[in-house]
Formats: sequence, C-alpha cells, structure tokens
Amino acid sequence: MTPAPLITLTTDFGEDSPYVAAMKGVILSTNPAAHLVDLSHQIPPQDVRHGAFFLAGALPYFPPGTLHVVVVDPGVGTDRAVLHVEWHGQRLLVPDNGVWTLLPGANEAQVRHVTNAALFREAVSATFHGRDIFAPVAGHLGRGVSATELGPVVKEWVRVEVPEPQITTGPVIGEVVFVDRFGNLITNIPASAIRADGQERVSVGGGNARRTIRWVGAYGEAPAGTLVALISSFGTVEVAEVQGNAAARLRAGVGTRVSVCLKGVR
Amino acid sequence: MTPAPLITLTTDFGEDSPYVAAMKGVILSTNPAAHLVDLSHQIPPQDVRHGAFFLAGALPYFPPGTLHVVVVDPGVGTDRAVLHVEWHGQRLLVPDNGVWTLLPGANEAQVRHVTNAALFREAVSATFHGRDIFAPVAGHLGRGVSATELGPVVKEWVRVEVPEPQITTGPVIGEVVFVDRFGNLITNIPASAIRADGQERVSVGGGNARRTIRWVGAYGEAPAGTLVALISSFGTVEVAEVQGNAAARLRAGVGTRVSVCLKGVR
Amino acid sequence: MTPAPLITLTTDFGEDSPYVAAMKGVILSTNPAAHLVDLSHQIPPQDVRHGAFFLAGALPYFPPGTLHVVVVDPGVGTDRAVLHVEWHGQRLLVPDNGVWTLLPGANEAQVRHVTNAALFREAVSATFHGRDIFAPVAGHLGRGVSATELGPVVKEWVRVEVPEPQITTGPVIGEVVFVDRFGNLITNIPASAIRADGQERVSVGGGNARRTIRWVGAYGEAPAGTLVALISSFGTVEVAEVQGNAAARLRAGVGTRVSVCLKGVR
Repeated sequence: MTPAPLITLTTDFGEDSPYVAAMKGVILSTNPAAHLVDLSHQIPPQDVRHGAFFLAGALPYFPPGTLHVVVVDPGVGTDRAVLHVEWHGQRLLVPDNGVWTLLPGANEAQVRHVTNAALFREAVSATFHGRDIFAPVAGHLGRGVSATELGPVVKEWVRVEVPEPQITTGPVIGEVVFVDRFGNLITNIPASAIRADGQERVSVGGGNARRTIRWVGAYGEAPAGTLVALISSFGTVEVAEVQGNAAARLRAGVGTRVSVCLKGVR
Repeated sequence: MTPAPLITLTTDFGEDSPYVAAMKGVILSTNPAAHLVDLSHQIPPQDVRHGAFFLAGALPYFPPGTLHVVVVDPGVGTDRAVLHVEWHGQRLLVPDNGVWTLLPGANEAQVRHVTNAALFREAVSATFHGRDIFAPVAGHLGRGVSATELGPVVKEWVRVEVPEPQITTGPVIGEVVFVDRFGNLITNIPASAIRADGQERVSVGGGNARRTIRWVGAYGEAPAGTLVALISSFGTVEVAEVQGNAAARLRAGVGTRVSVCLKGVR
Repeated sequence: MTPAPLITLTTDFGEDSPYVAAMKGVILSTNPAAHLVDLSHQIPPQDVRHGAFFLAGALPYFPPGTLHVVVVDPGVGTDRAVLHVEWHGQRLLVPDNGVWTLLPGANEAQVRHVTNAALFREAVSATFHGRDIFAPVAGHLGRGVSATELGPVVKEWVRVEVPEPQITTGPVIGEVVFVDRFGNLITNIPASAIRADGQERVSVGGGNARRTIRWVGAYGEAPAGTLVALISSFGTVEVAEVQGNAAARLRAGVGTRVSVCLKGVR
C-alpha cells in the first residue's frame, strides 16, 4: 500500500487529559506531513463494544489509503497484541480486543501482529501504548514504512460478540446495541429482516414496561414528543422520540429488548 | 466563487456517536484535498437558536472562500429544504430552519435550494442527511462544482426569531440570549444602547429575585466571586461572576430579563 | 526561528460556545496556510494548574517549530502580560499566569512580553484576548514575523506552585496533582524516588480513610476492580482501579495525600 498521510484518531481518552495531545505530538514528530483527523475521543472509558459500533458506523465512509489509529485499550501493558489490519484498502492500528471486528467484511482482512520494536518509542511505558507504540508506528506508516516490516501475519484475533436477532416467521426479536447522543435506540434488527412498509408494530422492553411504537419513514412525520420507529442510518431498526430522547423516556439502553411484528401477526 | 478547500463543521452530533466521523469520511472520499476544521459538535441537541448564536459569534472571523457545513437539523427527513448560502464571500450549507439567519447582513445573502440529487450519496437515508447530502455536496463544492449547479435561487427562507430589547428613555430592558461555558450571561442589549461609562445599574431577574450588578471594564477589575456587568465579546451587555459561574449563582438562563438604567434614572 | 505553520490550540473554552471557532477564524484569516491542531478545549474553566499539568504531559512530544497557543486566562482584561516563550525549539503564546511553567526546562526558556499592538486585532475587547490578541499574533508568527518584533525580553514571570514530595529515608510522602479521565490519580512522586520493584507499599489518604494499595507493573496484572499503584505515563507514581475509577472509589482528588514506603520500613 502507498503511504497514508491521512491518519484518523479514535480514543476513549477524553480531552481534559493530555493523552490525545501527546499522541498527536509523537505522530507529527515522526511525520510532520501527517494529516490528522479526529474521529472521537469520547468513546466511553474502556468500552470496547461501544468503540466497535462507532467504527462500524464511521469507517466505511473513508477513502482508500486512510490509516485509522484506535486506542480503546483496557488491556494496555499486558500481553494483548497490537494489530495492523488491512481492510477494504484502508488500514487500522488497534489493540487486539475486537474493537475493529464489527466492520463489514472484517473476516477478509489481512491482520498482522505489530512486533517490530524498532518502530516504537525508545522507552515503552506500561500505561500508555497510544503514545509509545500506536503513534510512532502510525507516523512511520504514513512515511511509507511497509506493512511487512511491522510483524507477522496472524490468523487468530479477538472478536467482539454481538447478539444476533431472532428472525422467525412470527415477530423478529432483537435488542438495543447502541444509544446515540440524541437518545436514539439503535437495534441489531436489519432493515432486510422486516418490510418497513408501515405495517410493522414495534415493541420496546418486556412485561408491563412494554411499549408499542408507531412506524414512520422519517422523524418529521410525527409531532414532537412522539415515540417512533424507523430505519436508522446504520441500516437497522431504530426507536426515537421526535425532538426528544427515547433512551431517557423509555429508560432503555444497550441490551433492552426490541421486537417487530407485522400487524395481525402475533 | 473559487473552490473552497477550507471546510468547517458545526453539528449537534456530539463525539460519542459516529455521525461526525462518517461525515468527515464522505467529505474526504469526495475531495481528499479538503482541509477540515471542527467548529463545534456540542451544539445542544436540536437547539437551532443556540446554533444561530454560535454561528453569529464565530463565522464573521473566517476568511473569504470558507465553506461552513452546519447540521443542527431537527427536521431531517421531512421536506425542509437544504440551503446553499453565499454570504460576505463565504458560504454555508445549512438546513432551512433559520440557524444561519443571525449572521450580520444575512438579509443580503444569496440563497439557493440544494436540489441536484446527482451530488448526493446514491441512497439518501431519512435520518442522516449530514452524511448523505451535506457532506457529499460540500466535497463537490470544494472541488470546484459551481453554486449554480446546486439548484435554484430562492427569496424565502425560515428565520430564527430573536427578542428585541426595549430601548426607551428610561431603562433598557432586554434578556439573556446565550449562556457560555463559563456561565456568563450574554444579553441582547447592544453596547450602542448604553453608555458603558460605569454609571450603569444593571439588574438581572424580576420581582424579589432581582439583583443589581456592578459595572466594570473587565472581569479582573473586581475580586473573584463578584457579580459584574460589562460589554461581551459579542458586543452586547454581559453579566458574569468573576472566576465563577453567573448562570448557576443567579439561576439565570436564556430568557432571563436583564435591564440597564443610568444612575438616578428609574 | 523559521515560520511555524503547525499551530496547536489549548483552551478552557469548551465547544458549545463560539470562542474556539472565532479564534480559528482569526488565525486562518491572518494565515490561510496555518495547520491547526486541537490539543484540548476541555481544560476545566480557569484552572491554570490543570492546564499546566496538561501542557507538561503533552508538549514535550511535539516537533521543533511548533507554535502552541494556550488560552486559560482568568486574568483577561487586566494588566497581566501576554508572553511569547521560546522553549526547546518550540514556542508558546500564553497569558502570564504560570500555565506553561511546569514544562521541563522552563527556567531556560527565552520569554518576551507581547506588546506590539500592530499585530493585534484593531479593536481589542476586554473579555476575549484569545480572539483579539493570541489568534492574530499566532497567525502572524506562522507567516514569518520574527519574535523580536513582538516585544521585549523579560526575566520575570508568574510561576505555578507545585507541591514538592517529601523524600526521606522512611516513606516518601506526596500528593495527587492530576486526575485523568479514567479517574487515575497522578502524584508528584517521581519514579526515581522509589524502587518500583514490587516491594513498595502505597497508601492513599490519611487517618481512618487510609488505604494500602498493591504495586503492579501494568494495569492488566491485577483483576478488574483491583486498586493498584504503578508508574504513570508522566513518570510519577499513579494509583488506579483496574478497569474502574480510583478517584470515585477512593473519593480522592488533587491534594489527596499519597505515601510510598518499602516493605519493612515504617
């Protein structure tokens, strides 16, 4: 692959701590021509699964040649590997905790262990591999160091587990897998599993707390304050409150059960 | 106008969701030379009025040729238009909800409906026009696509309503229109409506809660913890607590009444 | 020094207010070639000491020629000076409140008062020197204006006070000086003052609240939920909860006492 001057950063470091800034300094010291783009530093601390949904919703839109540096890394300082992933013409530097494995087509990626310590900072701390490993390796890759210099190709890596929806002849039963800033509830039920023709009946929660939600084509089809279900920008069923916050209103979050059935079907 | 490689982004998407990152990916895929600058992704969710004050406080300082992409868009998926605005040599892509209409000289802008779907992503979702319309159009504009290709010039658009201060021979009565991160209360009373010579008496709130505030030339003229009034960086009257938070201390916010009278005048 | 197109920004402005965006606009209007890199806009409001630890943890990693603009400035509008600091081949524009003085080797820096108003915006407000002084001066410096044009070299400036640890033949007694996003407690006890060989006994707090903490080489050496002590990425003793938040768990913060003694030593 050609050099990758476009380098994105995704971390759970927040902005009040100096960790992101230190990484930027190391990358720019290694490669002053790097074109840095922040994706997020607000992944919830050490929440690998949130990071995985974030990447799945963002990375497919980037151009070939982009290098994505991802540091959501509760295992820092242990023997968890650092991975270089070649995926659809883009590439990633990630800790081997599965954070990248919800990307579409992840199984066909070429994956290497990054083991060549000559590309690391001279002293590698036990607490901050973002600065001491990820950043200098990213800088070197941007300058044209080849993937083959990083370390060996591997065939095994950690995967994030995602719940599969139950798709039956009756209702489709899934769950919330991501809650966005607006309190929209993104589920694991793909658009392809339902008709999305307005005949759906969507229920959130179970038992007495169960609520039935109206199907719409867009938020604006219902008045402010209405609970609605529609196809999310992730391509799955979403439950939202128009100009409100469905997560707060329904006290729902990751793991809350959502089911979809056609009218007249039980 | 010439191509605009400088593209700024202002949204209410926050950073924990992948929406901003997806937009950046689409822009950079359309135009790898784009120079992206984040203005804010922390506009309060769907708060068009906050976004309008934000833009009025920020955009006048940018150079000609800058393209500002603004996605604070509670009407996404409805028939609200997408606008291309040429304003003072800069331009904006905005939803037609008034978010740009507090810019000085907004009335003289040239405004178009963005209707040329050939410039959109192939599949436009009902929930995420930032990714599917705003980002690809911004990328194309940055590559030199002309405004005339976007769609027709229009003469009508939605405006944000702002309260006007009452400027009388007695006190000037206005209200808080923006609260910044420091809890400073920015009002709609222009510096030109008062003398700002230290003879002012500024009151916040009404009834028993009314408080009279000392006029100063700069925060540092009074000790920490003092409530002060002065001319804000917006050019209007501001109420602040020195090294503190006036909004919290006075339990004031957008809409709180503020009046200014000269000493000896009732 | 050569022109500095790489300009970083560190402020306490947050992102919901237009202040950072206005600064970016002024810099880019003065110097369209500026390469802006955000370090943080989430320094706690007016917290100079937090800003100082932030800079000490970030700036040493940047390449020579970088220009750092730092606006954490409770004294804005008073007669506190604006400083231009040449430090290790990098330079800073900072308010004279000590925010830069925890950088290693700060005492050897060359410091100037920035007094040349020809480089400021025409009208300088009393509340927003970031926009009216720091940003235009940064833009001019990036275009090659020489430091000598800014103002006179000075030998006196404000310093941030940091508590020194007590290093005795018995325990080393220090305190927490920084709490990061993960709730990790960073102390002022340098690695050089202890052996870091696992024989340490680390205590946090005093009196009945005192807790003894296990020494580890890396977070991952202990199970999730364990309180551990180790060497931080700042090079000092750190107390952390594995995959948790030590600050919340121990109700500790800046100023909490931390002591280290060798086993068998009282």
